Amino acid sequence: MTHDVYIIGSGHTRFGRLQQTLEELVVEAARDAISEAGIAPSEIDAVFLGHFNSGLVPDGFASSLIHQADPAFRFKPAVRCENACASGSAAIYSGLDAIRSGRARNVLVVGAEKMTHRSTGDVTTALAGAGYQNDPVERGLSFPQVFAIVAQAYAERYGDPLDAMARISAKNHANAMNNPLAQMHKPVPYEFCREVSDQNPLIAPPLRLSDCSLISDGAAAIVLSSADAAASAKRRVRIAAAEHVSDFLPMSRRDFLAFEGPARAIAQAYAAAGISAGDLDFAEVHDCFTPAELLIYEAMGLAPKGQGARALEEGTVFADGRTPVNLSGGLKAKGHPVGATGVSMHALAFRQLTGQAGAMQRKGAEWGLTFNMGGTAVANYASVLNADRA
Amino acid sequence: MTHDVYIIGSGHTRFGRLQQTLEELVVEAARDAISEAGIAPSEIDAVFLGHFNSGLVPDGFASSLIHQADPAFRFKPAVRCENACASGSAAIYSGLDAIRSGRARNVLVVGAEKMTHRSTGDVTTALAGAGYQNDPVERGLSFPQVFAIVAQAYAERYGDPLDAMARISAKNHANAMNNPLAQMHKPVPYEFCREVSDQNPLIAPPLRLSDCSLISDGAAAIVLSSADAAASAKRRVRIAAAEHVSDFLPMSRRDFLAFEGPARAIAQAYAAAGISAGDLDFAEVHDCFTPAELLIYEAMGLAPKGQGARALEEGTVFADGRTPVNLSGGLKAKGHPVGATGVSMHALAFRQLTGQAGAMQRKGAEWGLTFNMGGTAVANYASVLNADRA
Repeated sequence: MTHDVYIIGSGHTRFGRLQQTLEELVVEAARDAISEAGIAPSEIDAVFLGHFNSGLVPDGFASSLIHQADPAFRFKPAVRCENACASGSAAIYSGLDAIRSGRARNVLVVGAEKMTHRSTGDVTTALAGAGYQNDPVERGLSFPQVFAIVAQAYAERYGDPLDAMARISAKNHANAMNNPLAQMHKPVPYEFCREVSDQNPLIAPPLRLSDCSLISDGAAAIVLSSADAAASAKRRVRIAAAEHVSDFLPMSRRDFLAFEGPARAIAQAYAAAGISAGDLDFAEVHDCFTPAELLIYEAMGLAPKGQGARALEEGTVFADGRTPVNLSGGLKAKGHPVGATGVSMHALAFRQLTGQAGAMQRKGAEWGLTFNMGGTAVANYASVLNADRA
Repeated sequence: MTHDVYIIGSGHTRFGRLQQTLEELVVEAARDAISEAGIAPSEIDAVFLGHFNSGLVPDGFASSLIHQADPAFRFKPAVRCENACASGSAAIYSGLDAIRSGRARNVLVVGAEKMTHRSTGDVTTALAGAGYQNDPVERGLSFPQVFAIVAQAYAERYGDPLDAMARISAKNHANAMNNPLAQMHKPVPYEFCREVSDQNPLIAPPLRLSDCSLISDGAAAIVLSSADAAASAKRRVRIAAAEHVSDFLPMSRRDFLAFEGPARAIAQAYAAAGISAGDLDFAEVHDCFTPAELLIYEAMGLAPKGQGARALEEGTVFADGRTPVNLSGGLKAKGHPVGATGVSMHALAFRQLTGQAGAMQRKGAEWGLTFNMGGTAVANYASVLNADRA
């Protein structure tokens, strides 16, 4: 028996301001993933939910919502995993453990969040909970303010990142035009992102509105299977690496600009998969704010430290570049229903690696990276996925 | 390599109305468990937090609080597991998967909750979130009201459980007198529990105050180790079974009086451990309300269905009986800091099975059961622990 685990099916609701309840989103994504996997619901041995919540939805027993998807789920173990904005990946990695421990052959993972029914202020407050409120650096700050500090620190140490940030935003909006599931389908050019305007106000200087990801509803799902169970699957993608690194929560306890957690998680993932950055055909990464994507280029090794902008200037990360980043539109334009985000990354990477990504498709993609992050580089999850066209 | 996993250390704060913050509780329990395990913090490969929250504490990134316990935890993966009142066991079972998958040799699990700084109304509302608010049976109900329905249904189907409920409450209060960590240290006799009075008012008829568990702060922790890593441990207890069964959330979708989820989880645990109910030397079970403990006697096989009272009448479950239940005082008198409860059960069972339970000690105990439950028999976790005096 090999320790390999495969994705054999995916589900993905539209992201955006949706009328559906959390339960309806969970059920839709779950059913779609099982249907694509081509297995019976009774063949699922355990279910895992990625869900941030933090008071966004009153219902506090989210794990059991998955059981509403099918009567065959009765008595199957279900649990919720939470790690702030990386809750979706947290659920996937728990699912991997369940398979690798021998406890399960097939696992259903769903990530979901319902956010748009709350006011922007409520959502901002809920998300700020993922900071460390006793810390001298971040006390009382919202997440846009935290990443404004990151951008300021970057400017002081390495030079002004504003131009790169605008290019990242414009790139991700352009990519989202090809993703029918994305929340935003509107060209937002570099020139618009670069300037502060009535339509693009400062949210937390120097961050403009165009530097911030969206408040979204949505769900995504995947079916994970052991090598044995996946042998007869119509489509399968191998999880070549899944590395989780948690850093200290308080920003004052670490050099937050070093992004050490992301760099370690990604380096470990490359090593486990036996590849290097140059082998990647695409990456879906955590652009909660544009400075995060810039720092992730450096953590990925696409550019030297402090020179992330080169990955843009040299064209590397654009849709037609060597390593396109966020072909889906990213959190910036696809949307960021917190608990769904990590599962969405894996679901869309599965579609890329099985040639089902439609207008987003990177032709012949064999290797993909997902990088999902909770907090300011606190909970870091890096997966390498492989097309496995054996 | 064997698949066996052992507990090699435990930590447990006092339960009650405490001045400490959530972080301080987590750190205290974590340090104590690692210290008892006799390993260096750097030897911990992954950490898991059981925490319900549901808005009780504003901070939304609880998993990373464990990292405050020791600088050596930097970069170790940490995640929060949630399954309502069974969140503590959820974290333990994820820890088991991490070891059995080969990803970790030593795992730290902490369960914690901070509740008493909120009003009783706020706590009741937060806990009610673990019901299914769209269900015709339980819409708008608090948890005392849900278990009042359970008691009423029991009375209709099997006969009045009020006398048994009062005996359970009095027993658990008496047991808590021997537990220095318990929230309540006050003899509460059967006669008091049996009658409605100014001091023992109806909370949700027929439940009196004496039928309800407490609102508590507290944390508990254990270190889990692979057989290999546990070989040199000073003390170790084998996890002979760990079974998780999730039932449908809405009460209208099942015969909630049948307690099928608990019965299945416990039966599976006996089978996995190769024992029967008669082999147990003690059990720590989920007496969130006294009717729950009564139904758990039946699910455990200590009495036939509808005759749980016999386990009391025949003396089986008392401290000097054949199978003492809740020697710790249970949720009723030890306290019920939600996320800590499942970990507390395992930590105290570890102490029983290593002869460290002080005045609570069951002499020569070799087999113990823990049963931790989220919702009304929705998330059911049954573990069998073995003294492993090889």
